[in-house]
Amino acid sequence: MSSPASPHHMTPDEFEQIGRDVMRWVADYHRNVEKYPVLSTVRPGEVRSQLPDHPPLRGESMDAVLKDLDRIILPGVTHWQSPNFFAYFPANTSGPAILGDLVSSGLGVQGMLWATSPACTELETHVLDWMAEMLGLPELFTSRSSGGGVILDSASSASLGAILAARERATQFRSNEEGLSERLVGYVSDQAHSSIEKGMTVAGIGRSNLRLIGTDDRYAMRPDLLEEQIRKDRSAGLRPFFVAATVGTTSSHAMDPLRSIGEVCRREGLWFHVDAAHAGTAAIAPEFRAMHDGLELADSYCFNPHKWMFTTFDCDCFYVADRASLIKTLSILPEYLKNKATESGAVIDYRDWQIPLGRRFRSLKLWFVIRWYGVEGLQYFVRQHVAAAQEFARWVEADPVFELAAPTPLNLVTFRHRKGDEATRTLQERLNASGDLYLSHTLLGGKHTLRMSIGGTWTERRHVERAWRRIQEEGRKV
Amino acid sequence: MSSPASPHHMTPDEFEQIGRDVMRWVADYHRNVEKYPVLSTVRPGEVRSQLPDHPPLRGESMDAVLKDLDRIILPGVTHWQSPNFFAYFPANTSGPAILGDLVSSGLGVQGMLWATSPACTELETHVLDWMAEMLGLPELFTSRSSGGGVILDSASSASLGAILAARERATQFRSNEEGLSERLVGYVSDQAHSSIEKGMTVAGIGRSNLRLIGTDDRYAMRPDLLEEQIRKDRSAGLRPFFVAATVGTTSSHAMDPLRSIGEVCRREGLWFHVDAAHAGTAAIAPEFRAMHDGLELADSYCFNPHKWMFTTFDCDCFYVADRASLIKTLSILPEYLKNKATESGAVIDYRDWQIPLGRRFRSLKLWFVIRWYGVEGLQYFVRQHVAAAQEFARWVEADPVFELAAPTPLNLVTFRHRKGDEATRTLQERLNASGDLYLSHTLLGGKHTLRMSIGGTWTERRHVERAWRRIQEEGRKV
Repeated sequence: MSSPASPHHMTPDEFEQIGRDVMRWVADYHRNVEKYPVLSTVRPGEVRSQLPDHPPLRGESMDAVLKDLDRIILPGVTHWQSPNFFAYFPANTSGPAILGDLVSSGLGVQGMLWATSPACTELETHVLDWMAEMLGLPELFTSRSSGGGVILDSASSASLGAILAARERATQFRSNEEGLSERLVGYVSDQAHSSIEKGMTVAGIGRSNLRLIGTDDRYAMRPDLLEEQIRKDRSAGLRPFFVAATVGTTSSHAMDPLRSIGEVCRREGLWFHVDAAHAGTAAIAPEFRAMHDGLELADSYCFNPHKWMFTTFDCDCFYVADRASLIKTLSILPEYLKNKATESGAVIDYRDWQIPLGRRFRSLKLWFVIRWYGVEGLQYFVRQHVAAAQEFARWVEADPVFELAAPTPLNLVTFRHRKGDEATRTLQERLNASGDLYLSHTLLGGKHTLRMSIGGTWTERRHVERAWRRIQEEGRKV
Repeated sequence: MSSPASPHHMTPDEFEQIGRDVMRWVADYHRNVEKYPVLSTVRPGEVRSQLPDHPPLRGESMDAVLKDLDRIILPGVTHWQSPNFFAYFPANTSGPAILGDLVSSGLGVQGMLWATSPACTELETHVLDWMAEMLGLPELFTSRSSGGGVILDSASSASLGAILAARERATQFRSNEEGLSERLVGYVSDQAHSSIEKGMTVAGIGRSNLRLIGTDDRYAMRPDLLEEQIRKDRSAGLRPFFVAATVGTTSSHAMDPLRSIGEVCRREGLWFHVDAAHAGTAAIAPEFRAMHDGLELADSYCFNPHKWMFTTFDCDCFYVADRASLIKTLSILPEYLKNKATESGAVIDYRDWQIPLGRRFRSLKLWFVIRWYGVEGLQYFVRQHVAAAQEFARWVEADPVFELAAPTPLNLVTFRHRKGDEATRTLQERLNASGDLYLSHTLLGGKHTLRMSIGGTWTERRHVERAWRRIQEEGRKV
């Protein structure tokens, strides 16, 4: 590897040569990822303490950088790509996604306007229509109808986009202009993701105006309680405007009943957002689509291929049924962005579908993934993960030391030690400290509960089996 | 290249082999980028019409995908990495940045919490402290003092973050809780970027509560007019809360006088945000740091290495002087994210510095860039670009057909045809249609004005010279 003696850009020849070394580094990382302790064991400040206080004056060789990756960075990494990573939800990646994103980095285009790289916009629209077909989403979310999709960074940004469009629709687009003056009220279940609360604060509506609706014994939102709360709020002179339902909550993968909630929203004239960030991927296999029943009543929907669909972060697919509302909410057109294609109205300018102006060519990685695996390949892996989780749930159920904490509709199993919180917590700490696997937790019914989330690219039945053996082993000791 | 006959993940061996082909594809793209027409000539719908209506059922070979990249995607690309791209601001990339981002994709970690990958957080904090030193930023923006930096996707998100923190500070964090109830008023120059207006709408404050302050003959904000407007608004019972100044406006690269504006903000108790998205990079060379004079009066600051510092999009460095305000504004801690490191208070959790929850390992690409070039290498290229722009400005000035539209403090030259708007517009259309170069425009003093923005990775003096010859040639014809 060459070192830049005098200031110079890495030439294409150097890039190809050094790139081969980096490619090998990444391949080796994936070859060995199973061998590392899943959860990093460094102490706060340990990584920084090994980095030089000042930036280098002269350029260095990439050799030196790769050595530091091994020496300083890797020990500080928690291995999300380990097949023994069962924490949170997966953020799985894959070869085709990495290579698609490499092409995006290489092209380095800005897709803020159609005109600034037509292929960036058109491939995105096209692949999002493909995804709608793959998940069996209602036709109204496709670009052929009044709606359409956009790739955002995260479900948090999708939630915020939905809240903003709902806010504007409810206030006849006066909030954008004059600022918020009405007291709007939104609704989620008490199991919903914190991103909805965050969106409410960002949008100036306030977290106290988000009602947390009670759930049933499966942790799913109760539409009767939703309706009751809306009635109460209306009587108090408040203005209900937005409901978010979750398909696969973070805590327990609970499935809110979309059809009943959607019917309430229709009757009440509220924006209905559906967050299927993690679970949505399952709909690739038709037998799991019941969870989407009633989705045609929704105004917006999102799911993240960067969670369980082998597409490197960041890739959230955000769909709306009425793109005009979203665009009217987020569009601003200063002189320096005006161009003939935009004026013609014949094109999509995705800057109007998101908060940032700039955007990279993110559809490439999704396109690479869909083409590498094909629909059947993706179905295959979804089914493998769900089957492994179902089997794990049966193991837990059959074991006198443990108990299931909630149903297991897909690939997330929630369980705990029968001896109670202290035992469950100790078990979690010992397992995570062992480096053999990594589990995160939640509270369900007020109890400390472990989450076994099975969706890693490299996670096979044998890893789940080994994890279960370790859990049993430690569980018997506490 | 192999084709996935039955469903399977791309193995590390396949990844290394196919990756080599993709690496060569990217290298070839950079070898040839100068040969393509800079602005894509496809018509709306042309790219989509060549893509299959339905996703593939079976996996395909990556060979086929790379062929489609050449055949379908490339013609629809506007070549932001061409040395003849002079539109907007650059979104330049480079070998080390691409490779750093490849490592990020390969590791696939989520840096939402320190605990979910300590190295992701610590390298980011460290490199942002390096960047503060490299730009000569005030000490209070570093992690050693009360402030610190974070990498966001864009300056739009930085603006929004600043507006939100300002909103909360002004309302004693009651807006987050109860929703916005006061009428807040913000201030920018009439030349500021549209992202501030967008941030005001998102935050629920409304665009009519953003005052556009008049500018002087160099298009810089007039602090006297700012002060006058604040007085008027206070008399009207409104609540001034936020001022954003720009270092290098999008239209003409005007430099707002930070010190005078900052003094007004101090006297009035307003949050002072400084947006140096593009121009900030110039501060790497000490002779250009006068533009930052008074920055120690700012509450927040941002600049984008993804514009002019060879770091692939997305990479915005957002600094605050008082991190507690930002964190208090954006922090939410649900049970499933709780962990001992967070509770200890000894670590940074960057999810509290941004709107999304998830975040990729973006500091790697910035670290790779700084180490490859070194401070002196970056200074060298900044100086080259500024020198080329200064020379171009002299050429315009000396030519009877053209006139400069504004001063050229750094690397953006604004100019027009002396015959007026129609001539300037025709000239722009002909140049862009020729494929030889790409220029965008703005309005300055009500006149159609061309922007010659010189900051591409591969842009050298010879490209600027050739562009000037083409501009002269076409300029004489209209």
